[in-house]
Amino acid sequence: MSKQRVLTGITTTGTPHLGNYVGAIRPAIAASEDPAFESFYFLADYHALIKCHDAERVEQSRREIAATWLALGLNTEKAVFYRQSDVPEIPELCWFLTCMAAKGLMNRAHAYKAAVAANEEAGEDPDYGITMGLYNYPVLMAADILMFNANKVPVGRDQIQHIEMARDIAARFNHHYGDHFVLPEAVVDDKVATLNGLDGRKMSKSYNNTIPLFLPEKKLKKHINKIKTNLLEPGEAKDPDTSTVFQIWEAFASDEQVSEMRQKFADGIAWGEAKRELFELINGQIGESREKYFELMERPADIEEILQAGAVKAREHSAPLLEKVRRAVGLKPMS
Amino acid sequence: MSKQRVLTGITTTGTPHLGNYVGAIRPAIAASEDPAFESFYFLADYHALIKCHDAERVEQSRREIAATWLALGLNTEKAVFYRQSDVPEIPELCWFLTCMAAKGLMNRAHAYKAAVAANEEAGEDPDYGITMGLYNYPVLMAADILMFNANKVPVGRDQIQHIEMARDIAARFNHHYGDHFVLPEAVVDDKVATLNGLDGRKMSKSYNNTIPLFLPEKKLKKHINKIKTNLLEPGEAKDPDTSTVFQIWEAFASDEQVSEMRQKFADGIAWGEAKRELFELINGQIGESREKYFELMERPADIEEILQAGAVKAREHSAPLLEKVRRAVGLKPMS
Repeated sequence: MSKQRVLTGITTTGTPHLGNYVGAIRPAIAASEDPAFESFYFLADYHALIKCHDAERVEQSRREIAATWLALGLNTEKAVFYRQSDVPEIPELCWFLTCMAAKGLMNRAHAYKAAVAANEEAGEDPDYGITMGLYNYPVLMAADILMFNANKVPVGRDQIQHIEMARDIAARFNHHYGDHFVLPEAVVDDKVATLNGLDGRKMSKSYNNTIPLFLPEKKLKKHINKIKTNLLEPGEAKDPDTSTVFQIWEAFASDEQVSEMRQKFADGIAWGEAKRELFELINGQIGESREKYFELMERPADIEEILQAGAVKAREHSAPLLEKVRRAVGLKPMS
Repeated sequence: MSKQRVLTGITTTGTPHLGNYVGAIRPAIAASEDPAFESFYFLADYHALIKCHDAERVEQSRREIAATWLALGLNTEKAVFYRQSDVPEIPELCWFLTCMAAKGLMNRAHAYKAAVAANEEAGEDPDYGITMGLYNYPVLMAADILMFNANKVPVGRDQIQHIEMARDIAARFNHHYGDHFVLPEAVVDDKVATLNGLDGRKMSKSYNNTIPLFLPEKKLKKHINKIKTNLLEPGEAKDPDTSTVFQIWEAFASDEQVSEMRQKFADGIAWGEAKRELFELINGQIGESREKYFELMERPADIEEILQAGAVKAREHSAPLLEKVRRAVGLKPMS
């Protein structure tokens, strides 16, 4: 049986934080070592332009995300690691899919509907401030996936719909022009940890409550110290299951360490002490990668070289498939 | 003063007919000889995919249209003559513009509104059967124009809106990312002849009333004989100004020939005779080109070579501009 192809895109608008690491980067890097899978991981910098019109932010984020994955040990011999914007076949395929995608399908996209609902609530025109980028986002995502005939796309529950749209568009294309695309499947792993942030809500750039993954040691400590806790004094028993400190601990600790910490909470560990232990745990696990990260960040040309090599590998897949698709729709060279 | 750049796209879904020739091709080829202008003429085969999902039709049309322009003497040393799908910078720019274009702007596009109105009249969902291709069409058209910083875009009145949209999108982009695009102007020439077709309505593929430009002589004669006339007998005076035969005559004849034919109508020329003269006139003007056309149609590889050379010239413009645009939005190589 041939390998299952897994594809994941990372939108390049932010700085990787602990939540990204635990929920996406760490499992992806582990999966890329599994010989049953062929991994395609890419920096989704065309997608970044939908939301982020700050060129410096996009640039910085591309560098940070690439350096992060590499510093954490992604093996680019095994995984195909590339930048979306280095694959010109993607926007071209996006156009072909645009011509097949039903507009009605896009009207049902959650992100678009949420934006419309917010406008309506505010008494604005339904499409106020909405760009065509937001509206077309599912078509570009379909192109990302179908371009590499990915079988599996690991996503959060909120993204399942987009994979269904990619399937729908692929099926329409295949029906009309012949079988060219694999119908991708969403893979939702409910066991993947979602971390809470400093304020106890889900860790997310949009809540401004993140702990960046690679901070200088002192700053990491400072951030961890800012995690919101309750007012219980040292010696008073604490509830681990409502504690962000404990929740983050769980995401990094072994089963044994989790049990130990649970006991310490029952025994009334001081918040300061719990945070110190959390810092030590995380710092121990990422310290080495952090060093590599800061080194890599100083050598952007080396990152560029790795990404260019990834683009060559990616285009070995995308170029011949696009050529077939072009012929199918009627764009073959005259001869 | 630098040359004014004029850009025209020809959607590759049909077979060129007399109406295309008189209204678009003939004036465009003449304009390309004017040293005041720099002409960019392209086969809009990405656009073709919006409406036409028949690959063979698209393929055949590309060949026919390219052969037509070349047979009619387009000087590809002077004009840049290329195929949209040979310029990968266009779909990429299209995505960048998609991210800047307001969805509300697209809602106002005539073609989209007409489709919605038809659906509503039929009691269907407003977006029934509408593809994202139709909806995104003005953004791709903006990319076509802005990619080459065209100053002037000759259009029919129904297309003025699309040029305004291209200006709007360009202005937004320039405002946000710095001056990269020329704001194009629509050029509407009301003097350009619109021919009527066999049935007296505007000659148009969608009415199935066209006279193809390059037909074998006998077939051309046959088509011209099918032009609808009234029942007036030879010897009865005829009204030239309500006659399709006369209208087509005007589009090909010299002023002197027009006066003469007007007189013949007053004198009661027989319809058969008027049609014979019309055939002779047209045949005389296009006979030589027709020969070249049929020759070229037998040598598709030669057409391909000419288009490839055109793509090289086009990309001398599009590649550096896209590189600037990429850097402006935050997609520059790391170094």
